Amino acid sequence: MKIDAIAFDADDTLWHNEDAFASTEAAFVELLSPFASDADARSTLFNTETRNLALFGYGVKSFTLSMIEAAMELSGGRVSSADLAALLDLGKAMLQRPAVLLPDVAQVLMSLKRDHRLIVITKGDLHHQERKVDDSGLAHIFDAVEVVAEKDARTYARIAQRHSVELSRLVMVGNSVKSDILPIVELGGVGVHIPYSITWGHEQVAADHLRAYERNADGARYWELDRIAEVPALVERLLD
Amino acid sequence: MKIDAIAFDADDTLWHNEDAFASTEAAFVELLSPFASDADARSTLFNTETRNLALFGYGVKSFTLSMIEAAMELSGGRVSSADLAALLDLGKAMLQRPAVLLPDVAQVLMSLKRDHRLIVITKGDLHHQERKVDDSGLAHIFDAVEVVAEKDARTYARIAQRHSVELSRLVMVGNSVKSDILPIVELGGVGVHIPYSITWGHEQVAADHLRAYERNADGARYWELDRIAEVPALVERLLD
Repeated sequence: MKIDAIAFDADDTLWHNEDAFASTEAAFVELLSPFASDADARSTLFNTETRNLALFGYGVKSFTLSMIEAAMELSGGRVSSADLAALLDLGKAMLQRPAVLLPDVAQVLMSLKRDHRLIVITKGDLHHQERKVDDSGLAHIFDAVEVVAEKDARTYARIAQRHSVELSRLVMVGNSVKSDILPIVELGGVGVHIPYSITWGHEQVAADHLRAYERNADGARYWELDRIAEVPALVERLLD
Repeated sequence: MKIDAIAFDADDTLWHNEDAFASTEAAFVELLSPFASDADARSTLFNTETRNLALFGYGVKSFTLSMIEAAMELSGGRVSSADLAALLDLGKAMLQRPAVLLPDVAQVLMSLKRDHRLIVITKGDLHHQERKVDDSGLAHIFDAVEVVAEKDARTYARIAQRHSVELSRLVMVGNSVKSDILPIVELGGVGVHIPYSITWGHEQVAADHLRAYERNADGARYWELDRIAEVPALVERLLD
């Protein structure tokens, strides 16, 4: 095949992200322990995030507001204002955290950049995502950075058109089957799935979706790798 | 001149926005009245927003988090968790509010669309801004919607390049001198300023900037109108 561009998801593909949500959630559970069990705290937080997703969108600020709302609900309003302020501080700490790159990311991108256009396609909070790209030291490597509200087929088609990329010549690398792989395969591109150690509930694909996906996927459209360091060799193989 | 595209700011140019912030701020001041004077509440909120801007970016979610932080500061931690939850609800109500169009907006855009490419360029929260465009019923009129983290010369240059628009042939219509007019004039485009009844503190341009701006501005580059209904006649005049 010919390759017009190689696109990368950012969170949990180029740098660690979900680990910060997990450790903040652990602090949330601990803070709410006078009022709720571990399991109740986690499920109420997840349900609050889900309920607010259409209104808030993705990202740390949305997560922080949902933590405050869930804390009120779990405590029946008995949580102290100091504890709510502590939740706000946990959110700010997440926003302040520098982007910690996953192993081999910089070398792999530099090597691919010699022969390919590289694009970041990430969803979530515009301001925070752009700041992480800037902080990562990788910004100069990319031909474009696209922050989008949702990663679906319509979004990918719009981005491909904008950059004059044929969808059948687009390779997308990411950790989420739902956001990074399924829409790309649907559009005729190539999806390269590299799982991260943690997957957020909202990115988990239901079993029936996965089955349909496995049926549809042929070797040329979908690849699963363990590490980003394996991407250059795959790209060479795809070019044959 | 030739016109490649006419771009519009969204908040307070196409629909009301700042009025919602003003009424929410009034509710904030009332809620904090046991702890702080009207003036102190307003200035602490503004200072909190300013301090958080680099970390949070623009938008309602950022404003909501800053209200909660400012309430803790103004009350010395004595504000109740119920009051903090009420601030969160005020923020959610802002996010839920439908876009209320300013007078004549739909007719003006439909008329301009006949002969021109129309682009929305708005800053702030990606998810919320896209939702407002969708809710406004105007989405089908625009050739592109660009939500950006900051409206400066670099951003406008990038957008113009992306859409193959020559900056000297770009007309930008907006209510903020700082965000919608100055960068466009600097880049050689035409800025059309239509003031809204309220201007947020962060968009107010310092007197020395304004003086420099007035010195630099010539009739061909900068126009001030009272209402969006005057834009089509101005565009006709620019085309001569």
